[in-house]
Amino acid sequence: MKHHRTEDLAALASEMFEDIRALSADAAGVSRPAFSARETETLSYLAERARTEGLCVTEDLGRNLLFSLPEHEDSDRFTMIGSHVDSVPMGGNYDGLAGVIAGLVVLIAARRGLRALSRPVKVLAMRGEESAWFGACYIGSKLLTGTLPEGEFHAAHKGDRRSLGAHLEALGIDTAPIQAQEPLCDLSRIEAYLELHIEQGPLLVERNIPAAVVTGIRGNFRYRDIHCIGQAGHSGAVPRAYRHDPVLAFAELMHRLDSTWQHLLNTGQDLVLTSGVVGTDPTRHAIARIPDEITFSLDIRSQDAGTLDQMRRYLKDEMADIARSRGVRFELGPEVAVAPALMDPALVSGLERAMASVTGEAFSMASGGGHDAAVFAQAGVPSGMVFVRNRNGSHNPDEAMEIADFMVGVDILASYMEAAS
Amino acid sequence: MKHHRTEDLAALASEMFEDIRALSADAAGVSRPAFSARETETLSYLAERARTEGLCVTEDLGRNLLFSLPEHEDSDRFTMIGSHVDSVPMGGNYDGLAGVIAGLVVLIAARRGLRALSRPVKVLAMRGEESAWFGACYIGSKLLTGTLPEGEFHAAHKGDRRSLGAHLEALGIDTAPIQAQEPLCDLSRIEAYLELHIEQGPLLVERNIPAAVVTGIRGNFRYRDIHCIGQAGHSGAVPRAYRHDPVLAFAELMHRLDSTWQHLLNTGQDLVLTSGVVGTDPTRHAIARIPDEITFSLDIRSQDAGTLDQMRRYLKDEMADIARSRGVRFELGPEVAVAPALMDPALVSGLERAMASVTGEAFSMASGGGHDAAVFAQAGVPSGMVFVRNRNGSHNPDEAMEIADFMVGVDILASYMEAAS
Repeated sequence: MKHHRTEDLAALASEMFEDIRALSADAAGVSRPAFSARETETLSYLAERARTEGLCVTEDLGRNLLFSLPEHEDSDRFTMIGSHVDSVPMGGNYDGLAGVIAGLVVLIAARRGLRALSRPVKVLAMRGEESAWFGACYIGSKLLTGTLPEGEFHAAHKGDRRSLGAHLEALGIDTAPIQAQEPLCDLSRIEAYLELHIEQGPLLVERNIPAAVVTGIRGNFRYRDIHCIGQAGHSGAVPRAYRHDPVLAFAELMHRLDSTWQHLLNTGQDLVLTSGVVGTDPTRHAIARIPDEITFSLDIRSQDAGTLDQMRRYLKDEMADIARSRGVRFELGPEVAVAPALMDPALVSGLERAMASVTGEAFSMASGGGHDAAVFAQAGVPSGMVFVRNRNGSHNPDEAMEIADFMVGVDILASYMEAAS
Repeated sequence: MKHHRTEDLAALASEMFEDIRALSADAAGVSRPAFSARETETLSYLAERARTEGLCVTEDLGRNLLFSLPEHEDSDRFTMIGSHVDSVPMGGNYDGLAGVIAGLVVLIAARRGLRALSRPVKVLAMRGEESAWFGACYIGSKLLTGTLPEGEFHAAHKGDRRSLGAHLEALGIDTAPIQAQEPLCDLSRIEAYLELHIEQGPLLVERNIPAAVVTGIRGNFRYRDIHCIGQAGHSGAVPRAYRHDPVLAFAELMHRLDSTWQHLLNTGQDLVLTSGVVGTDPTRHAIARIPDEITFSLDIRSQDAGTLDQMRRYLKDEMADIARSRGVRFELGPEVAVAPALMDPALVSGLERAMASVTGEAFSMASGGGHDAAVFAQAGVPSGMVFVRNRNGSHNPDEAMEIADFMVGVDILASYMEAAS
């Protein structure tokens, strides 16, 4: 791309971001609820811009939009570049939207003759990815791949308490195939699914790299409410040997998990672990009382299913060991697990080559957050992702992506599509 | 003591315990508020029993009662056997009361000619030891020793919000010397202060020993609200190296304190430590979010002031070390400290000899809870304590002391008074 034309595209992208920020502004940040009128307005805005650029716009059975060059409108097979346009309540403007606008900019660059596409591309602007609205996540891509669990169809909206099914029907979506778990699109026509997304962690900021190729999306297993139950007692009067202190048991468990985490990283494994919710019982705890119980959550993630299995076994072994040695009891409660989704190796290396051609050096990393790309990957569609550097995480009004970094991500996608064979 | 006469004394003690339990029964357990009419009734009941046994009864300037043999009423110097008659709200019947009844039984045994007293004894039945009522603890003994801090004089009652000073005046107590911090009794006349108390921990139950001699009363230092402040982030997207996780920092700190505790015990030092109140912020925490903060309390006790100083330094060093290595910040907040009170060495060995003569073997231990004996010891009165085995801790309706164990404690006191020279 020539320099001033790249600047034109960056300005165009900025304008689209700012227009959509304005139309979805909330008390703080933006709110684009899943399957809402605000989401429909966002899609209409994008459709209008796409038509102005001479692109074709169609709507699919999930009322998502598809954009393409006119010559690719009826292609039998195509690469899909997609993401979602909804946001969390009072969230940032880039989580999801960046991926859709990136796809559009790739098409516009091609339409303007600045880049070539070595094969047909369709850009997918999806509804309903954020779990903030119905509890369920990736709803749009689950509908397309026919994988929405029955329970999620009946999940209540956080605001009006009406079910997801009712919201879909209000949009005029035929829910019979959804309830029969039939895909709303022909997955065999999608050669590959590509998604650009802001990084939700600090790695690219810390490493001073504008973008990255994603190698896989971490799966996880979680426990919402683990109870460690010991025995209450007078803080001054019970000698160490007779204590059954659940707080010290929790501390020992977390310390052991933390040490093992460091060890696994040293041996090249991928892992993150978090205990985000911790507390003794406010109705019973006191400074001068050994607590009888502590409750905590655990969220353990890896892009490798084997590492997750290993950690699950390790967690249970350590709990049993600490329970024995300290005379406490752990009650794990129900586990919620999501399998990791590896990105397609050929796509990863193709995107790495594209990144090297754009920035001089490829950089790859795992994704910690879940994305629609994981749903497509698990449905058998070869998938790939590009991350763009972003400050302050996502799901908050302080998301901060630079347009220059965004254009590096767009350039990686465009270079890949130019070269892909 | 001859066997049937010991049984008579045990029956008498049981009767006194049960009568006072009945007159102070609450929805659960007993309630004998500090400086209340219920407390006065309890003292009146004891006075009546003492007079029936031919003992002298006098009231001191704090409206506590003093019991003695008639021949010792005007003794210039005496050993004092004391404890308190108030209880926590819905507490157990033995915390405090056991020590008063023990003293009375020693006097009654002497009056009945079953035991001799080698020197004059006065038994002190005090008001107002429990902090549950005015926030302040050991009020009765602080009044006697002239050590009630000015702030505590103005402390509000948990029920009627009237000040301690107002409650004392309502009982007809002259508060001018109290506010001038003048002792309400002549401490130079007290040769020794002895107190029998139920054990508030499980050690004697676990070791299967009916009683113990107390070597010292643990002092402590406490922090009510320590904040460990890190940085929030996405649980899946922030790699370990970029985390500032306050929960893992807390776990590491507690794990290090716990290891040091074990090490100090191995080297013969006295220590207990407890983090009784722990929690992430319920308004911000979430399973999939690295928390930005955890709040916790610390209560560290030892009968050795040097060990407390060592732990205070160690705590601060470890916090600084963990703060550096994990990029978190600890805010300790105000410290509240109570100095340890060692029991008088000559009294400890005298009581140990008495215990060996009663049970065949002496057993000594530190007291974890605070007691009036610590106030007398800190005021310069040589002090000693005897613990009696008790299940289920104290300050709850489930306190469970066996009368047989209580009589072992009484026998230790009586044997000591018989032998003391």
